[in-house]
Amino acid sequence: MSHHISFRTDPTPKDIENVRGIVESTSFFQDHEIPIAVELVEERLAKGLGSGYHFIFAEIEWRTAAYACYGEIPCTKGSYDLYWIATHKDYQGKGIGKKLMKEIENQIKGIGGRVIYIETSSKVQYEPTRKFYENYGCELEAILKDFYDTGDDKCIYSLVL
Amino acid sequence: MSHHISFRTDPTPKDIENVRGIVESTSFFQDHEIPIAVELVEERLAKGLGSGYHFIFAEIEWRTAAYACYGEIPCTKGSYDLYWIATHKDYQGKGIGKKLMKEIENQIKGIGGRVIYIETSSKVQYEPTRKFYENYGCELEAILKDFYDTGDDKCIYSLVL
Repeated sequence: MSHHISFRTDPTPKDIENVRGIVESTSFFQDHEIPIAVELVEERLAKGLGSGYHFIFAEIEWRTAAYACYGEIPCTKGSYDLYWIATHKDYQGKGIGKKLMKEIENQIKGIGGRVIYIETSSKVQYEPTRKFYENYGCELEAILKDFYDTGDDKCIYSLVL
Repeated sequence: MSHHISFRTDPTPKDIENVRGIVESTSFFQDHEIPIAVELVEERLAKGLGSGYHFIFAEIEWRTAAYACYGEIPCTKGSYDLYWIATHKDYQGKGIGKKLMKEIENQIKGIGGRVIYIETSSKVQYEPTRKFYENYGCELEAILKDFYDTGDDKCIYSLVL
């Protein structure tokens, strides 16, 4: 069954709970990471675009099914970091992540971006995450050995726009 | 002539001008980068170690000849970023940078650090900077092509402690 997805970019206070719900549902993130995801929404609500955080929310049947948060990397011309991308577990396996990535690409291209960087861990539990980026066409540009911890490397993907 | 160097780690308000003077004197940094170096001192003075910024000042004959600023990388265990290291032009070519690097290593080791990361540009003007890190024993672990701008890559060095 195909779902109609619509995208919106203006966070509302309700998105604090939307983001918490999505991130918690995935089981991909550690307990200490969830408040960080929520804080970015709060900072965006408090400071607007001056926060440096851009959001995209994917809506299906009036429910926020997925979201992404990105921002320009300071001291670069047109390089962006994708900080968060997550689909609620109830909506996984339906190609929503891929459509959201396409929307992220379009939006970043629209504000003059050249390239998107995505960082993730080398740990086994993040293999589906890495496969998602690789299948989408992101290039694994660098691996920083033991970056997060001994035995936990940082994988840096890039997507040229 | 050999100089006696002493190190101190507690910034004082006078270090706002010390840091500005050092960074300006080198001609290595762009105009927009100098206020960033100064802001880190101000933030450290305002928030203490809660700022996440650690400083080391190298003193020669009562003058601050060089300094470094580093901090732990969030969401890592024992990975540190060296944000700034600079020697005043009046004191360059005397091996002070190398002694300061050794002191940075010792201090980061002392607080449980495993590895130090240093990022710099691939541009020709930063060749002396890159040579300094390479001669010291840092490993060029990754290059992110066109990271800063088209034709301006990010070089990521690491120094395992």
